[in-house]
Amino acid sequence: MKLPKAIEEVINNFERLPGIGPKSAGRLAFYLLNVPQDYNQQFGEVLINLKKKVKICRQCFSVTEKEICEICSDVGRNKFQICVVERALDIVAFESVGGYKGVYHVLGGVINPLEHVGPEELKIGELIERLEKLDEKVEIIMATNLTMEGEATALYIKNKIEKMNNKNGILITRIGSGLPMGADLGYADQATLSRAMDGRREI
Amino acid sequence: MKLPKAIEEVINNFERLPGIGPKSAGRLAFYLLNVPQDYNQQFGEVLINLKKKVKICRQCFSVTEKEICEICSDVGRNKFQICVVERALDIVAFESVGGYKGVYHVLGGVINPLEHVGPEELKIGELIERLEKLDEKVEIIMATNLTMEGEATALYIKNKIEKMNNKNGILITRIGSGLPMGADLGYADQATLSRAMDGRREI
Repeated sequence: MKLPKAIEEVINNFERLPGIGPKSAGRLAFYLLNVPQDYNQQFGEVLINLKKKVKICRQCFSVTEKEICEICSDVGRNKFQICVVERALDIVAFESVGGYKGVYHVLGGVINPLEHVGPEELKIGELIERLEKLDEKVEIIMATNLTMEGEATALYIKNKIEKMNNKNGILITRIGSGLPMGADLGYADQATLSRAMDGRREI
Repeated sequence: MKLPKAIEEVINNFERLPGIGPKSAGRLAFYLLNVPQDYNQQFGEVLINLKKKVKICRQCFSVTEKEICEICSDVGRNKFQICVVERALDIVAFESVGGYKGVYHVLGGVINPLEHVGPEELKIGELIERLEKLDEKVEIIMATNLTMEGEATALYIKNKIEKMNNKNGILITRIGSGLPMGADLGYADQATLSRAMDGRREI
């Protein structure tokens, strides 16, 4: 059965999104056939405007509406504690927890040779430059994902920072790793158990 | 953290879609921040045009680009065998299998008192009218979903058809029900097993 072209196009666009397969894409397209036109009109317009309206913070490379993002321009935040994350979305996760009062640095991904992403594609040079301008002792919290690529990227950056000629000293930390809250030891993988043992703390 | 409004709007629109939760919506919005603007532009335009370009077939209420859909206007299809489905998407499923050479009738949903959908909201009257115009023996294949609502709707339509004054006779069938291919009897529910037993066939 040849579907009308307008439906096919909507299906194709949904299918290109991560995590949406052909069946879900079809379901979504047919769902949108039954909603008021106003909704589709608005949905279409916000998609078209998304990239036009969102800016990238010149300091931390997070998303913002201004030149410098809310967090970087907040005088209440500690500029000498920088949490390095892969994506701006990771900042949303940390901020939803609250408690962290430092600032962030968005790499824009991780080093991934299989996908042709080298260090120069990421905001690593910009992080080094940022560190060079700071005249106090700084803590860098490496908060890339606990994947192979995230671990390798964290190590790569650690090496880069250690080669810097910094008179104030830089403390490099990695976010805690081990069993997630609510976890059942019986289902944990070996790597996580080993990390949990290494990361034990006095209580 | 207050996200830029343009991102919030995209997240809200994705979240309203069935099967997409707040986390997935955020992920999709941030994904679209990193694709070329052309893609978002095109995606937005096809959404805006979707309902403008798609028509509903005057005969079977499926989706089409013309007044009468491809299947209804195909002289090779048997007009006296009508498969009644809930949604146009169900036709796509049957057509992808091939083999069925009759036509379809899209109800536009099922009778669902909890969601205030009564028989008058569906294309049941239109089905009866369609049957009245046919001057040969007709087979109606009830292919609504195997849910409580789908079953009830099939029965409701059966009763309606049986009250018709049709001199040619109408055969009403229900699509086969039982264990799906690849199924493991140990995991089948009681209702399915009971249906499978009732629906046994000589081999």
